[in-house]
Amino acid sequence: MSATQPCSFVIFGATGSLAREKLLPSLYALERAEKFHDHLRFIACSRRDWSVGEWREYLMERVLTKHGAAIDERCLRRLAERFDFVSGDLHDPQMYAALRDKLGSSIGAGCSDVVFYLAIPPADFFGVITQLHDAGFSAHNDKGSRHRIVVEKPFGEDLASARRLNAHLHGYFNEEQIYRIDHYLGKETVQNLLVFRFANTLIEPIWNRHFIDHVQITVAEEVGVEGRAGYYDGAGALRDMLQNHLMQLLSVVAMEPPASLDADALRDEKVKVLRSIRPIPRRSVSNYALRAQYTAGQLHGESVSGYQELEGVEPGSTTETYVAAKFYIDNWRWSGVPFYLRTGKRMAEQVSLISIRFRHPPQQLFRETPLENIEPNWVVLALQPNESMHLEVHTKKPGLGMNTRRSRLLASYRQEHETASEAYETLLLDVIEGDRSLFIRFDEVEHAWQVVDPILRHWDGDTGFIHTYPAGSWGPDESVRLFDSEDHSWRNEV
Amino acid sequence: MSATQPCSFVIFGATGSLAREKLLPSLYALERAEKFHDHLRFIACSRRDWSVGEWREYLMERVLTKHGAAIDERCLRRLAERFDFVSGDLHDPQMYAALRDKLGSSIGAGCSDVVFYLAIPPADFFGVITQLHDAGFSAHNDKGSRHRIVVEKPFGEDLASARRLNAHLHGYFNEEQIYRIDHYLGKETVQNLLVFRFANTLIEPIWNRHFIDHVQITVAEEVGVEGRAGYYDGAGALRDMLQNHLMQLLSVVAMEPPASLDADALRDEKVKVLRSIRPIPRRSVSNYALRAQYTAGQLHGESVSGYQELEGVEPGSTTETYVAAKFYIDNWRWSGVPFYLRTGKRMAEQVSLISIRFRHPPQQLFRETPLENIEPNWVVLALQPNESMHLEVHTKKPGLGMNTRRSRLLASYRQEHETASEAYETLLLDVIEGDRSLFIRFDEVEHAWQVVDPILRHWDGDTGFIHTYPAGSWGPDESVRLFDSEDHSWRNEV
Repeated sequence: MSATQPCSFVIFGATGSLAREKLLPSLYALERAEKFHDHLRFIACSRRDWSVGEWREYLMERVLTKHGAAIDERCLRRLAERFDFVSGDLHDPQMYAALRDKLGSSIGAGCSDVVFYLAIPPADFFGVITQLHDAGFSAHNDKGSRHRIVVEKPFGEDLASARRLNAHLHGYFNEEQIYRIDHYLGKETVQNLLVFRFANTLIEPIWNRHFIDHVQITVAEEVGVEGRAGYYDGAGALRDMLQNHLMQLLSVVAMEPPASLDADALRDEKVKVLRSIRPIPRRSVSNYALRAQYTAGQLHGESVSGYQELEGVEPGSTTETYVAAKFYIDNWRWSGVPFYLRTGKRMAEQVSLISIRFRHPPQQLFRETPLENIEPNWVVLALQPNESMHLEVHTKKPGLGMNTRRSRLLASYRQEHETASEAYETLLLDVIEGDRSLFIRFDEVEHAWQVVDPILRHWDGDTGFIHTYPAGSWGPDESVRLFDSEDHSWRNEV
Repeated sequence: MSATQPCSFVIFGATGSLAREKLLPSLYALERAEKFHDHLRFIACSRRDWSVGEWREYLMERVLTKHGAAIDERCLRRLAERFDFVSGDLHDPQMYAALRDKLGSSIGAGCSDVVFYLAIPPADFFGVITQLHDAGFSAHNDKGSRHRIVVEKPFGEDLASARRLNAHLHGYFNEEQIYRIDHYLGKETVQNLLVFRFANTLIEPIWNRHFIDHVQITVAEEVGVEGRAGYYDGAGALRDMLQNHLMQLLSVVAMEPPASLDADALRDEKVKVLRSIRPIPRRSVSNYALRAQYTAGQLHGESVSGYQELEGVEPGSTTETYVAAKFYIDNWRWSGVPFYLRTGKRMAEQVSLISIRFRHPPQQLFRETPLENIEPNWVVLALQPNESMHLEVHTKKPGLGMNTRRSRLLASYRQEHETASEAYETLLLDVIEGDRSLFIRFDEVEHAWQVVDPILRHWDGDTGFIHTYPAGSWGPDESVRLFDSEDHSWRNEV
């Protein structure tokens, strides 16, 4: 057991939706893959007035629901037995005292570090951080502590509040103790992208403005915001998705080769990308970004209601459920190449794509043949529905004439017998093992907010009008106004 | 019907193996594809003492044997009815007189040009050309004639004899009338290569010495030289295959983008490549080329005899049935990149490949991960057994660690329902339509001979020793001595 591996892993919000949907099933998968050392213990914290037995029942039932019949019951039981349970309110010092008691025993058992996982609403971050300090868990009052604190997105709601939250965190914890999660970065596609870009001689030489015409990043979701409209109406797609997930994807696509795969080497390069993004002038925000809200529509043949009809949405709300934006990275590699980003709820399909379009080849060679108007090449990296990568090239059609067709050179990341590992599995293991390379450093958060801040301020100051799109569509037609060229259009298919 | 399309197509050697195996089945395929205009007539010339009816029976039987049950009898009959037959000896002026009579009628019918296809042994080229002139078919005595003469490979047996043959041809025909066939150039893969290289932005930027480590061209045949050992023992693999087929492939792989797809624009670029090949110093031929001869061995589990045991092979012959050679193209694109060429009879598999190996990517980034020794990328263009193209890249293996695997991004040129069209189909149609872009200009032949001449002269002057390899193997182990680097080796698999 490494000295940097903690013995205790505390989950705040253990009965919330994030824990239920993501954390508990991922912990089971890691248990099954024998990734946990013998002394690792978990403590679930929740308001529910449960015994540890009741918690373990709940846990096992949740994992069974998620993983279904293929479950290994011995593993599941082993995981459940690692768990203790603390009942109480997040704002009540009593709960932290109870937690401290429980931790006492395992800390005494030879390893000292604790992971605190904040699977709770962002509004509670401040309070819990203060409570952890008061209970004696911060670096401030426990010198040499290597406790880790895991903070879920969104980290702040604009540049200023992100800075306040960060200052608050840094008041009690050192940067090495802080793990800011963006679960898109756990996705293997992002790691695939690193390998694809930097382990192949075929790719890196053409990965720049000389050969790439533009880049599109699309995260389209079929889900609406039912059940969390209260939070969402105060946030919107720009804060909820674009500032974090899409900006992270952009920075991995665009970054220079890092000097190593170390956490800081990677993050240095990502920050360089964010810092090179041309600031959006406040006066011409509408040339760079467009927001929209879904109205009632049809999704896979079923009627779904519009955003305004949802419980928890302010009447006349102009909160965007769709955002499209254009960024320029003003460095040597990318100068002049537009990056088009878009994300929305209630879109026609569940699809996450990074689509790179190359320039047209010189075509004079093929004049007077059917090849005169050759489509340009694409590299398409899909994160959803399946992780894959393909190149779209042209080959000659069999037969006597000089005709071509598009060939898709496809690499599925997964073969049929291989199952996807959840983003959270990688990330949870990284937290336990102390590898921060896939987590977000504050300067990344800060610069990402800096990039989108002009858009936020423009929109917050203009609550009169918002474009709409029918649920089940690909978003508002008006988004084409962002395109730099007549021959640009959104790529919807993988 | 275009004014440049001839009405008559004369086949000398109509009952020989080339006509039987290639020309007649291809003519049927073109007939079936409705590529022939109504006035097109064929005349078969052969020593056989046949009537036209007997020839048509023979023709139909040959095509049936080749195309099998799927034949369209109406088409086959239509083709047969286009044929006339002239019986006679190639060296007998009487035959040309008979031919002239037959042609008279069709020439009179409104179109004047004739194609003369020399499907005969190279030794007969000189005589037939003279006879054609004497019978009044040459440009010399028929001003304004656009008759075409089609000459099969090999064109000469060294630089000097090729020049003599060419001078003889030019004595009677203009260059635009001369079609030098290299059926490798009819292969769609070569056309595919043009499209692949010049219709895709992804490829051309990396197609040079900065990114390519070396190129391999392999034409491995399972057949021996049974039945034509008499000819072959005087020729050998260098003259029979490398000087023409492999040098043609090399020049298409290596050429600069032509200004157009016109015959001369393409050939200008191919000649530039051949002229840029670094001459092999006569003193160090053995550093650049290696010859070998097969001995008895096993092929697909069956015993096959050695070359020396064949009827028609001189005792103690040092004629090579295998040749491997290395060339450098000393221009800006290719300087320092070795091109390894090899071809042999009785090799382990029937396979024709152009394999391009890229340089290693900088690997420091992946130090201390399992990726430390990444295999370089390859582009593999297969001509046989199936025409295909693939890129070999690295992607991350699914799972938690940073492991990679090779992914083959494959473009089959043909989908399951699509059948291959014979190289000869394209070429025959090109002859009829007057498109010379896939035929060889004399300066190509000449420069290809110039490149291999030092090897020929060295070997012809040294008849004491030749390496051997067992039939059914991949050739002699000694061929590795050609490699510039420890990490080069022959790629045998598609």
